[in-house]
Amino acid sequence: MSSDRLKAFSDGVVAIIITIMVLELKVPHGAGWSDLTGLTPVFLSYVLSFIYVAIYWNNHHHLLHTSEKVDSAILWANMNLLFWLSLIPFATGWMGENHFAPLPTALYGIALLMPAIAYYLLQRAIIRRHGSEGVLAQALGTDFKGKISPVLYLTAIGAAFVATWISYLIYVLVAVMWLVPDRRIENALREE
Amino acid sequence: MSSDRLKAFSDGVVAIIITIMVLELKVPHGAGWSDLTGLTPVFLSYVLSFIYVAIYWNNHHHLLHTSEKVDSAILWANMNLLFWLSLIPFATGWMGENHFAPLPTALYGIALLMPAIAYYLLQRAIIRRHGSEGVLAQALGTDFKGKISPVLYLTAIGAAFVATWISYLIYVLVAVMWLVPDRRIENALREE
Amino acid sequence: MSSDRLKAFSDGVVAIIITIMVLELKVPHGAGWSDLTGLTPVFLSYVLSFIYVAIYWNNHHHLLHTSEKVDSAILWANMNLLFWLSLIPFATGWMGENHFAPLPTALYGIALLMPAIAYYLLQRAIIRRHGSEGVLAQALGTDFKGKISPVLYLTAIGAAFVATWISYLIYVLVAVMWLVPDRRIENALREE
Amino acid sequence: MSSDRLKAFSDGVVAIIITIMVLELKVPHGAGWSDLTGLTPVFLSYVLSFIYVAIYWNNHHHLLHTSEKVDSAILWANMNLLFWLSLIPFATGWMGENHFAPLPTALYGIALLMPAIAYYLLQRAIIRRHGSEGVLAQALGTDFKGKISPVLYLTAIGAAFVATWISYLIYVLVAVMWLVPDRRIENALREE
Repeated sequence: MSSDRLKAFSDGVVAIIITIMVLELKVPHGAGWSDLTGLTPVFLSYVLSFIYVAIYWNNHHHLLHTSEKVDSAILWANMNLLFWLSLIPFATGWMGENHFAPLPTALYGIALLMPAIAYYLLQRAIIRRHGSEGVLAQALGTDFKGKISPVLYLTAIGAAFVATWISYLIYVLVAVMWLVPDRRIENALREE
Repeated sequence: MSSDRLKAFSDGVVAIIITIMVLELKVPHGAGWSDLTGLTPVFLSYVLSFIYVAIYWNNHHHLLHTSEKVDSAILWANMNLLFWLSLIPFATGWMGENHFAPLPTALYGIALLMPAIAYYLLQRAIIRRHGSEGVLAQALGTDFKGKISPVLYLTAIGAAFVATWISYLIYVLVAVMWLVPDRRIENALREE
Repeated sequence: MSSDRLKAFSDGVVAIIITIMVLELKVPHGAGWSDLTGLTPVFLSYVLSFIYVAIYWNNHHHLLHTSEKVDSAILWANMNLLFWLSLIPFATGWMGENHFAPLPTALYGIALLMPAIAYYLLQRAIIRRHGSEGVLAQALGTDFKGKISPVLYLTAIGAAFVATWISYLIYVLVAVMWLVPDRRIENALREE
Repeated sequence: MSSDRLKAFSDGVVAIIITIMVLELKVPHGAGWSDLTGLTPVFLSYVLSFIYVAIYWNNHHHLLHTSEKVDSAILWANMNLLFWLSLIPFATGWMGENHFAPLPTALYGIALLMPAIAYYLLQRAIIRRHGSEGVLAQALGTDFKGKISPVLYLTAIGAAFVATWISYLIYVLVAVMWLVPDRRIENALREE
């Protein structure tokens, strides 16, 4: 089965997720500076989550580029990823509304950890279909970023109950690390 | 007429339906454990409905794969299916918010029964166009799952007024039954 | 310029419009029959508007099928149509929430009249580009339904201040009239 | 990498942004004229923003038409544009709800200025990839409208604290200026 509709559906869901988050930025009733500055934590949460979801879309774009045919295992691994991504707006909103309290900060880490695991499972499902000689398998190599991210998320989840600023530092750090595009796949495709 | 735009439009509507449901998971004002655990029934309802809508997308994907040309009957049978799917978020929200009370539990069953009937009518419309010798007609065969599901939904609707846990057991059971992908169509396509 | 992206964008907007309307069907807090039956007017409004938007999508599908190339006039005529369609959820919600009071009933008629005019302008823009010998120009012929609809909407708008049931009768009648698919274009395409 | 999915994703996000804005037009509880007329500022804000987002989609359509291949720089420049566009509904809602008070009027100008800058950066990213001999580079030429717009937005932002009607005049003026389609690219493509 062709992967075209899977890509289109995923694009639709991710487009909605990324845009729904902005609805948490609720229009204040007053028209003064304090009404605006009161939204700062919600806005910062939005920026961070926008970047994370954009990174997922970007990598998903690269990932499915390597897979022209999909089977049921890939379809469901993809659905699983979309499910966990769909919870990011909730975690973002809760964190923003509570001015970065410990529990919402930890939950945000879980909301980042789960799609990371789901993405890993999707990679596995694609490699299983195309074999370890496929473009993706060779491109991934040791997959350092994919392996270190969950460890960092877990650290941030634990740190939330000690000092939330450590968690935020980690969330920003991981985002920056991923913003560097996944040149491995780009290179592997070019070499073909 | 080509089925491409029909697929794209359906993908769009289903993507929105599946994502709109998460909006029922309203961000709590407090930042404590109890604020989070209070959302458990809404969350569980969301998980169940996400799986159901994902199953529909998946099967719809397979179904329209067999039909490259569409006529007005197929267009409207598809619109009918989308209409009933669009009511799932409402039924899900009502069930989740009322902690699985009898009437919302029964309505949820109706919200699952109606798209099942609509899906059946869409299958008929496609078969009518492509003839009983078409890929779909042969693939469906006796269509056991398609026939047993409405019976199970009806049982669950009735059971809701006796003991809601029976209804939930049935809803989960049917979801599990469908999670096994529709290999009939996949196989029929492969044999061609 | 190719019409592919125009179709895709229109599909996206219409998919969101049709799904946003269901959000007016707000989840009631109680779990009893009266909570559900209280939603009847909102539900009926939703059904009617769903059918109207579905008719527009359907006819839009046929209409742009005849136009592979688009120019700026077509692009903006299409945007104008999408703008008026985007106001249907508001008019639907207002009518449903106010149990079919005169003013909301009349506004609903305006919300149907405006996209009808916009659709007419879009047809003109396409015919202007493809010439009166094009598929669309010949298919439309006298365009009876397109010409009688605005007259009927205007009648319904006026009737709303006398007896709202006349308006509803007209709204349902026009919907039924359009549900008969636009075979003119289908036939013209087949003859080519 | 092909630009198809980038276009599809952008279409999805812009379709949602343009439709989400209409949600600020909240259904009033009463059914009288005053309930409707009270929404006038929100409605006018919606019309203006709809036109702006439509202009962006239109120009984005032309812009990416010139670029069949995309790299990571283009992907992220595009994400940056989508981010700023996603804030337009918020700025629109705040301006409409506060009946055009100074600070919301100025923020609206910022909400228009930022995507203008982001659009400029996206143009740069595309030109960098395709070279100054590419279709886009020649089509843009001196890019008068692209250069004058930010200056006008800045003027409007400052004017908001003196007399808001000057700001609105400018916002409407810039929209009218852009409504004239970007014939430069259309012409350059035709000459090829």
